[in-house]
Amino acid sequence: MSNETVDAIGEDGLIELFSIEAGSLGGKVIVPNGDDAAAYFLESKYVSVVTTDSQVEGVHFDLAYTPPNVVGRKLVSVNVSDIAAMGAASRYALLAVSIPPTTPVETAQRIALGIRDVCKANGVAIIGGNTTTIDGPIVLTITLIGRAEPSQLVRRRGTLVGDAIFVTGHLGDARAGLEVARAGPPPSADDPRYPLFSALIDPVARPRAGRKLGEAQLVHAMCDVSDGFSRDVRRLLEPEGLGARIEGSALPISDALRQYAEATARSPIPIALAGGEDYELLFTADPNAEDQIQQLCANAGTPVSRVGVVTARPDVEVRLPSGEIVELPTGFEHYVPQDR
Amino acid sequence: MSNETVDAIGEDGLIELFSIEAGSLGGKVIVPNGDDAAAYFLESKYVSVVTTDSQVEGVHFDLAYTPPNVVGRKLVSVNVSDIAAMGAASRYALLAVSIPPTTPVETAQRIALGIRDVCKANGVAIIGGNTTTIDGPIVLTITLIGRAEPSQLVRRRGTLVGDAIFVTGHLGDARAGLEVARAGPPPSADDPRYPLFSALIDPVARPRAGRKLGEAQLVHAMCDVSDGFSRDVRRLLEPEGLGARIEGSALPISDALRQYAEATARSPIPIALAGGEDYELLFTADPNAEDQIQQLCANAGTPVSRVGVVTARPDVEVRLPSGEIVELPTGFEHYVPQDR
Repeated sequence: MSNETVDAIGEDGLIELFSIEAGSLGGKVIVPNGDDAAAYFLESKYVSVVTTDSQVEGVHFDLAYTPPNVVGRKLVSVNVSDIAAMGAASRYALLAVSIPPTTPVETAQRIALGIRDVCKANGVAIIGGNTTTIDGPIVLTITLIGRAEPSQLVRRRGTLVGDAIFVTGHLGDARAGLEVARAGPPPSADDPRYPLFSALIDPVARPRAGRKLGEAQLVHAMCDVSDGFSRDVRRLLEPEGLGARIEGSALPISDALRQYAEATARSPIPIALAGGEDYELLFTADPNAEDQIQQLCANAGTPVSRVGVVTARPDVEVRLPSGEIVELPTGFEHYVPQDR
Repeated sequence: MSNETVDAIGEDGLIELFSIEAGSLGGKVIVPNGDDAAAYFLESKYVSVVTTDSQVEGVHFDLAYTPPNVVGRKLVSVNVSDIAAMGAASRYALLAVSIPPTTPVETAQRIALGIRDVCKANGVAIIGGNTTTIDGPIVLTITLIGRAEPSQLVRRRGTLVGDAIFVTGHLGDARAGLEVARAGPPPSADDPRYPLFSALIDPVARPRAGRKLGEAQLVHAMCDVSDGFSRDVRRLLEPEGLGARIEGSALPISDALRQYAEATARSPIPIALAGGEDYELLFTADPNAEDQIQQLCANAGTPVSRVGVVTARPDVEVRLPSGEIVELPTGFEHYVPQDR
């Protein structure tokens, strides 16, 4: 049994493997998985919020150093992050899985389990999907559907001059984790670099903070940090022709990153700024709302930091702890074959 | 310029290439493409109807004999067919594209154009998407979202004993087209086998007939014919524990298939029954509704044929033109690496 590959279980076997009982997760699913299409109903006070994303073997993950369930977890988490960054709540998912026939069934099962775990934790029902064979790497695509009241939707537009800039959690861990992954074998759980590696392969989104920020209608503009702080902060500024002053000393840097930067004789600040795959929430709001924002993020169990201020001048600058002010470099481009 | 490959235009270039202005297609898009997620609103009388599907290079298409725009067209058409088979109208799409860096930009552009053409023809706005690189074949995934009033949704369940079985258009053309494609170079447009090849690579869905059948609430159960009539007709029967008697002489067979069967010294009936990738609508209804069904399909510009009757006995039989009655063989399994 344990050597069985997916060509032996056929399309129906694979579909079953990737299915979750929609009923067990709730949600107004009118037609569950198994028909030509699925159908769901939202009350008229809600809009549907939709996003899609793929994880490609050899580009986004490598089964040589990532357990298959963690691959499945990340597929869902990065999309939960997108829905959270709209101030919306994730509800339904559709999966499209392309999987080579030589893949062990156990690998597919464990990927499916990871998907299921994060879906369940977020109250997401998988209502549709499709499996195909492929002569190439595993490709996993999810479409995640959330809901929000229109007044609670937070877009990338809306930032005002004088706004404070906030970010949840820590920045730069996943980027340092990528360096660690490229440098050698995966660190063990007692390696001080393990939290960095874990941030890379198994990011945790901020759905509760996203919802609470949406409900409170305190936030002017928001996105998640997926391409790195330097690049993503511009997404909140450029639509309005604005700039920012970032306080380097205010950037949220984890102990693990601080230790890693020290060990490699660098400052953690450029790592945090360049970042990438942080899946934190980055948002702008009236500076007077800071106490309320701190309170509601605390209620969501999510740390939040005030890291800068929006300026009328369109440059984006960083004040380093030394007092020196430098231009913020842009982040990295995703669309390059990765050399790990 | 014409030798440029997609690694030169980057992720942003690719995203732009696959974007369509949502505004130009109408639909209540609250947040268009370009934010963390898109948002749309449906009036409370509607449910959202969602489906997803992938087209994988080397499995579902081969650029050696299929023009790239036709690849894009088919990606949309097969999903429009799924939404139509629910009695729903297609409205919004999200695309996930994995494309190797060595792909010519022109190929990507032409795929995008084909996607755009069929979206426009169906009033579908592309509201979201994602592009990634891949070290392997092109993988195109679409999530298509439609809408319908709940009372107009047609599911696979609901068939009654004594129902007539109907199917739109012709059966078996795409299967014969696959034989043609495997046998040699693609036929030219004046080859009598060309319509068969065309049915395979560029299928046309039946969205208008699907909508009209949904609105009229005459249909008991419906699916589209994607895995072949023999397999799909069971999807309308097995949930109810019912069977059917199919009239071989009533099966809709195109002139092209008839001619092809003659030329290869076979009966077209087994080809029509086995089929696959027909993307016609297959449905059950009260036999007394036949005139109304014929009329509304005529109004949709879609031919429809009554091909059998639902029986209490759970066997599915075919009466051949000779009068002989045979058990209906099942169709083919999709999930096998295709050897063309």
